[in-house]
Amino acid sequence: MSIQPVQAFEPPYLMAVFTSVRTTADEGYPETLARMGEIVSGNPGFLGYESARTPGGLGITVAYFRDHASLTAWREDLEHQAAMRQGRSDWYESYTLHVATVERSHGFVRNG
Amino acid sequence: MSIQPVQAFEPPYLMAVFTSVRTTADEGYPETLARMGEIVSGNPGFLGYESARTPGGLGITVAYFRDHASLTAWREDLEHQAAMRQGRSDWYESYTLHVATVERSHGFVRNG
Repeated sequence: MSIQPVQAFEPPYLMAVFTSVRTTADEGYPETLARMGEIVSGNPGFLGYESARTPGGLGITVAYFRDHASLTAWREDLEHQAAMRQGRSDWYESYTLHVATVERSHGFVRNG
Repeated sequence: MSIQPVQAFEPPYLMAVFTSVRTTADEGYPETLARMGEIVSGNPGFLGYESARTPGGLGITVAYFRDHASLTAWREDLEHQAAMRQGRSDWYESYTLHVATVERSHGFVRNG
């Protein structure tokens, strides 16, 4: 499967942008990340997510949701809340979270 | 200088999220990227930007603006428009652009 950006959907929808710098602590991190992916994928208003990390540098993850109800359900998920607590205690040196309403979006695919 | 996520500002403000997959063509790309950074930094409503790219994978760049006027000025900048055209012809396999209004944001810094 080739890597593709998440498509542009019909606005309005929501976007949560999580920008982070990791600590060197890795215990439990990959498993938790995979589990969070499973949980959020079960959210009926979840549209997709995408992630990039510069080695030794910044990571940016963007998750897209249809509406506030689905984003709230994700924020309030108990396993997700436990993961966020562990993120602050173990995995992240620093992070910023931005929640925003998408007003417009468009995509480009070569020869597409 | 240590790497830090862009801080959380007082909402509302704007966020442009550019997610891309690169071609292998690199000629002119680093120079253009540096020049775009210079131009956008001269925009009085520009708040900051951050970027991550997984080697061989997805890149995500997020730029923050105070208001629509400053984002429009950036979009309409003639050098930026020429760079976008060259991006479609040479540098990007695919991309998606999302423009959104930030409703809430918060940050975390370890021991901060």
